[in-house]
Amino acid sequence: MAERLVVIGGDAAGMTAASQARKRRGPEDLSIVAFEKGNYTSYSACGIPYFVGDVVEFDRLIVRRPEEFRAKQDIDARIRHEVVGIDLDKRTVTVVHEGAESDEPFDHLMVATGGKPLRPQLDGVDSTGIFGVQTLDDGVTIERFIEEEKPEKAVVVGGGYIGLEMAEAFQLRGLKVALVERGPQPMATMDPDMGALVADAMRGLGVELLLEESVTGFETKDGKVSAVVTDARTLPADIVVLGLGTRPNVELAERSGIPIGESGGIVVDQRMKTPVDGVWSAGDCAEKKHLVSDRPIAIALGTHANKEGRVAGINIGGGNATFPGVLGTATSKVCGYEVARTGLRESDAEQVGFEVIGVRTDSTTRAGYYPGAAPITTKLVVERGSGRLLGAQIFGKEGAAKRIDVLAMALWNGMTVDTILNVDLSYAPPFAPVWDPVLIAARRAWDQVQAEAAELR
Amino acid sequence: MAERLVVIGGDAAGMTAASQARKRRGPEDLSIVAFEKGNYTSYSACGIPYFVGDVVEFDRLIVRRPEEFRAKQDIDARIRHEVVGIDLDKRTVTVVHEGAESDEPFDHLMVATGGKPLRPQLDGVDSTGIFGVQTLDDGVTIERFIEEEKPEKAVVVGGGYIGLEMAEAFQLRGLKVALVERGPQPMATMDPDMGALVADAMRGLGVELLLEESVTGFETKDGKVSAVVTDARTLPADIVVLGLGTRPNVELAERSGIPIGESGGIVVDQRMKTPVDGVWSAGDCAEKKHLVSDRPIAIALGTHANKEGRVAGINIGGGNATFPGVLGTATSKVCGYEVARTGLRESDAEQVGFEVIGVRTDSTTRAGYYPGAAPITTKLVVERGSGRLLGAQIFGKEGAAKRIDVLAMALWNGMTVDTILNVDLSYAPPFAPVWDPVLIAARRAWDQVQAEAAELR
Repeated sequence: MAERLVVIGGDAAGMTAASQARKRRGPEDLSIVAFEKGNYTSYSACGIPYFVGDVVEFDRLIVRRPEEFRAKQDIDARIRHEVVGIDLDKRTVTVVHEGAESDEPFDHLMVATGGKPLRPQLDGVDSTGIFGVQTLDDGVTIERFIEEEKPEKAVVVGGGYIGLEMAEAFQLRGLKVALVERGPQPMATMDPDMGALVADAMRGLGVELLLEESVTGFETKDGKVSAVVTDARTLPADIVVLGLGTRPNVELAERSGIPIGESGGIVVDQRMKTPVDGVWSAGDCAEKKHLVSDRPIAIALGTHANKEGRVAGINIGGGNATFPGVLGTATSKVCGYEVARTGLRESDAEQVGFEVIGVRTDSTTRAGYYPGAAPITTKLVVERGSGRLLGAQIFGKEGAAKRIDVLAMALWNGMTVDTILNVDLSYAPPFAPVWDPVLIAARRAWDQVQAEAAELR
Repeated sequence: MAERLVVIGGDAAGMTAASQARKRRGPEDLSIVAFEKGNYTSYSACGIPYFVGDVVEFDRLIVRRPEEFRAKQDIDARIRHEVVGIDLDKRTVTVVHEGAESDEPFDHLMVATGGKPLRPQLDGVDSTGIFGVQTLDDGVTIERFIEEEKPEKAVVVGGGYIGLEMAEAFQLRGLKVALVERGPQPMATMDPDMGALVADAMRGLGVELLLEESVTGFETKDGKVSAVVTDARTLPADIVVLGLGTRPNVELAERSGIPIGESGGIVVDQRMKTPVDGVWSAGDCAEKKHLVSDRPIAIALGTHANKEGRVAGINIGGGNATFPGVLGTATSKVCGYEVARTGLRESDAEQVGFEVIGVRTDSTTRAGYYPGAAPITTKLVVERGSGRLLGAQIFGKEGAAKRIDVLAMALWNGMTVDTILNVDLSYAPPFAPVWDPVLIAARRAWDQVQAEAAELR
């Protein structure tokens, strides 16, 4: 008799796992059912700001619909099915669909419940016009609200990637935008000096940037948001987006007794198996290992969800694959500015016990004389003494951000900057100066490591 | 008394070495003189096609002029000074300037004589209107010829980087362009399947591409070239560019007894010292080690010249630096198409004794739904069985080429494709699909390595 794989969550991690398992085991050997509480499967949540900003069409964000999963892969993908309980002893999940509850048995369980947006418990936070940006359903709701209510003033709460991207989307739609951030800089995942560059860029684009202000509540009128109240002012608002980040959505797993790690994510090994036999997890809800700090971490990113889902699916399918961990690489484009980061910030590195040097270098994306050469600022966080690269951040214009990948590769391999500066990276005037910005940054950092060592002698 | 460093060759390798040596040793300790036989120091030869194509201004190609070297760094840079002899016993070089010969003593000698363009010994090859593209003086001569003679038909001999870039430059200037290449594809540094993509692109742009044709001579009229004769036809030509590649320019070194390696370049160790005490070399004339094949190789590239010059200069200056070798990374832009390569081609790898699999993957530079998503074809050359990456090639549009750097990093670190596919590269819809093209390529290659292994069982 066929075994049964139950997948909770129909987006990247869950459906990739389902697809990989199906590749290795036919329907006669493994039946697969996926429960998704929302209206869509396999979509690009990262594309929501571009959909709201009218940059991309809605349909393009959906990679694969339930009927395709059924027809092409014999995967029984069911939307508007919410899993409300897991019984690890009976090996069943409890599913609610259109008010009716049923128990569904599993042999393998894939927990891909994703992330849960942080939502401050403040007066009025549940009013109409206040949105999170998490699922494609959120995107649809925001888009409909803009079309129907024609808001003029937008307030974005939180200056992370999603916050900045939504600020741009609103600007593209012609709204007046203010962004409230509790910290001293937007993009808290960058060092303060790099965050300051982002702040200048945002202001230059006409976004009202309110730093070191905390939201204390919301004013409403007829149940609709009318203003965001901070500890410094009251900001009129017709639409509000909460971009305060997410945490792993693990309530269901936790209640059932699946172990949760110190990061708040579900504990998994390198094969994406939880400590419970036959139970797997991947994506935003699963704990990851940070390969530079060697510590558990929770990060919500589609690219991890895909990689981890692949690994889980291969293993469920009887193969063998592992996911070693993450570097914390991330990138974002905001109105022509490009921001990217990987590894540890200065403060992270110090917290883990490294002594660090931070070195910032300005260069250009192409040969200085070649048309389109754009500024790029590269910051390297380097271990004092050894010159080991611990982290990197990039801010610049077209062509800047993707260079972070070279530094991610360097981190992955534990390279020191004196080695990095010699690596045979590509050079041609349309693509780089004769010393690529990455190499210049490594060279400068190494010079500084040596200068400090000389001073100590 | 101060020691004296004599530099032969005033471009990237030589002047970088001079600058680095100066940084570490003041003029009271080390006097530095550089002899350049041409009219310019420290220029971007790679920029010549863009200058000829009217894409960049001439002045921008010059990084630093002799008077700046003198004023800012106390480096006595002398143009139109040709070194015609080296006496290793007497520790002198013989220099010719305006017809007068003199002997100049040295304690340290930096041989940075660059590359020598290959020039076929054919009838008429020295006629007016036939040019090499090697030095900035060549660029100036070509530009002047175009301005004065207003040629209409250009023939480029040789389908390497320089040949393709010059073909584009001539097209941009409104000339009708034919390109003659002896091999079955342009871009012989790529595998044939990837070269075929380049051929299609060139033809699509209106370049008459004549493959598997050899030039047998040139017809002339009043001492000026009028046609290029191949083994298949006679091609009318008002201007001809020879882009047949270069070899290390080592005659001077060889005559003086400095050892030449099997690649044809000057033998150097990792500190860029030749086997002769006090004699250093760097740049196109110096032999390099290929880090994948572990064999000596001659490659002419400004980026190596800069890195090697830096290392030589640090060591001459009393410091300690090493240059481990090269990967054969190179890139080029031809009319909006981007081409890049690193490591070994399939044929190279087989010659060195590897059993290989070549895997080609099509993807997009951005998320498929994001505006500006462009095609990218990534080819990986992978060792059968182990999955070790041995080489990579990329062909695509805007945003494609620079991804080769990630694969260069992988080669540098001896990574296998099953590891590469898990690396935490950056993702956001404006910059990449959720699986970066590099990761997709690695995943496909790994799938194929495994499929072959399964077949063998």
